[in-house]
Amino acid sequence: MNLGPRSYPILVGTGALRSVGERLAALGAGRRTALVSDRSVMALHGSVVIESLRASGFSVAEIRVPEGETAKTLAVAERCWDDCLAAGLDRTSTLLALGGGAVGDLAGFVAATYMRGIPFVQLPTTLLAQVDASIGGKVAIDHPRAKNLIGAFHQPRLVVVDPSVLSTLPDAEFRSGLSEVVKHGIVLDTAYFADIEAHVREILAKDLPTLERVIAGSCRLKGRVVEADEREGGPRAALNYGHTVGHALEAATSFSKWLHGEAVSLGIAAAALIAQRLGMADAETVTRQVGLLKALGLPVTFSGPAPDAVVQAIARDKKARDGKVPFVLAPRIGEFRLVFDIPPDAVLSVLGKMQEAAG
Amino acid sequence: MNLGPRSYPILVGTGALRSVGERLAALGAGRRTALVSDRSVMALHGSVVIESLRASGFSVAEIRVPEGETAKTLAVAERCWDDCLAAGLDRTSTLLALGGGAVGDLAGFVAATYMRGIPFVQLPTTLLAQVDASIGGKVAIDHPRAKNLIGAFHQPRLVVVDPSVLSTLPDAEFRSGLSEVVKHGIVLDTAYFADIEAHVREILAKDLPTLERVIAGSCRLKGRVVEADEREGGPRAALNYGHTVGHALEAATSFSKWLHGEAVSLGIAAAALIAQRLGMADAETVTRQVGLLKALGLPVTFSGPAPDAVVQAIARDKKARDGKVPFVLAPRIGEFRLVFDIPPDAVLSVLGKMQEAAG
Repeated sequence: MNLGPRSYPILVGTGALRSVGERLAALGAGRRTALVSDRSVMALHGSVVIESLRASGFSVAEIRVPEGETAKTLAVAERCWDDCLAAGLDRTSTLLALGGGAVGDLAGFVAATYMRGIPFVQLPTTLLAQVDASIGGKVAIDHPRAKNLIGAFHQPRLVVVDPSVLSTLPDAEFRSGLSEVVKHGIVLDTAYFADIEAHVREILAKDLPTLERVIAGSCRLKGRVVEADEREGGPRAALNYGHTVGHALEAATSFSKWLHGEAVSLGIAAAALIAQRLGMADAETVTRQVGLLKALGLPVTFSGPAPDAVVQAIARDKKARDGKVPFVLAPRIGEFRLVFDIPPDAVLSVLGKMQEAAG
Repeated sequence: MNLGPRSYPILVGTGALRSVGERLAALGAGRRTALVSDRSVMALHGSVVIESLRASGFSVAEIRVPEGETAKTLAVAERCWDDCLAAGLDRTSTLLALGGGAVGDLAGFVAATYMRGIPFVQLPTTLLAQVDASIGGKVAIDHPRAKNLIGAFHQPRLVVVDPSVLSTLPDAEFRSGLSEVVKHGIVLDTAYFADIEAHVREILAKDLPTLERVIAGSCRLKGRVVEADEREGGPRAALNYGHTVGHALEAATSFSKWLHGEAVSLGIAAAALIAQRLGMADAETVTRQVGLLKALGLPVTFSGPAPDAVVQAIARDKKARDGKVPFVLAPRIGEFRLVFDIPPDAVLSVLGKMQEAAG
């Protein structure tokens, strides 16, 4: 990832977690580190990382956090700051996040704010985190009234992606991550999209060479966008494709009904249909998107919440600029456009149809 | 302040607070703003700022925070995030801090983390904040065990300094700010130091033309250092002169015995004596520093805490790198040097002498 003084390597490879210590030492990191993870992930993959760090001369404090989104609270962040201080971490020390997107978001926020920012390493163990959340420096915790409301841009010093850890990931979570893979293809690269279309079976079978190629491709695509627009003032908006409706669906159901990637899948389907309704995309562009999501086992219709509630949640979108919500649409596969002032009627009608289709 | 995409103007002038709205509008800021201040400062200077903002078409939400350092807690930050959300602030909105260093640190931290960072304006009303805290983007709240432990680098979009507000500042607080003025002279500019030496009477009388010149000079000196080293990896360390012992004195007395600038004055006197003891500076260099601090009504001797406790507090310094505490020393007026591994004995002996001198 080329971001001037904030550049960093993203390593994708089977068994890569064993090289974390060596890689961190090569970056000239201070001797002290802390590893943030939840109980299950620590049990599965913690020892490989800790041994690698110790073998390279690092001390490692372990910081346990709750599983999933429940880790992203101010109370948990506060405990992490206490733990960093107790472990004697200073500005040369490194905080490592081992886990899914939530652990990365939380640990990244703690690293961004402890002593005004200390080095940070992402070791993503879910597909979603490997192809999306761990790259690009967006870190945050949740506010009781809005997800990711409190956060920062804090680039990691290193991202190490080991696709072999996905063998222990529950199927629903694995599929959820695929929605971000599909998203990258739709808005950024038609050849990448076609590669996914052609290898649905290998992907769902978690074939390692295929996963390495697909994950590395997503990292490269996302990386290119972040390089062009680190602070999300322009083209980085593309990565929000499917997320405006997706986030609203999650918010309207208190984040309890869908995994994030499932909501994004619904959001992609909605964005595709909205583009068609506004005359911006043709039927085939919609069919390919919806077809690939379905083939990967992702939802494209839903039975609740009411379209009204979703449209109201969209109006509270964090990306609103002086009251206007930006919408990313795809005129064709491999292209995107940022549109303000989408008529609420168009959104309502599309959501209504997606509900009807669910029966 | 030239920091590439994070550049911003620093305006110093009598009556400048009346132009805040106009200046903010010229920067293309979004329509919504919130003004963070404490009850006393809001009563003294709030209406000038609010009228200026409204006259330029901005909406203004008022956010009241406790006075002084008690504002810099996670609980107060949490309330501010709530208030920002309630006021409908989005990423184009501006948070303005009106008050001393504590209000600026707190509001800056809230602005740095709300929606991953929104625009921020500093309107410093104490001398300390005008010549130091409001410039350079260091923002933070306190941890129960360490001041400024949780923070960020978040540059303001605009700093407006109105020296006329100092007429309502208590004398002790005014003098406290002068220690940072003296510090800038010692480590950065011998002519500036001589100017202060030659105008002690005008400064203490709060003569407005003199204050404008002195404040603008300090802003320029600090700005030059921050431009060279925004994230405090190198020369910005100079600004820490007097602060290693100063912070330790504050920490060892639970921040209750001295105003920050008073502790810094003691820290400057200690640093001057340590440099002499190590054979790095001559007697005249020490005499001029101590003499100017005394002439400005700042303390250079103290009766407690025990030197041991201060040395222990130094060892916990936030600026330690892999366990080593960097010390800034001045070989002569206008120069500085960063030194690691100062013998604790030298510090103990100097602190002991400063206590003896206090009787």
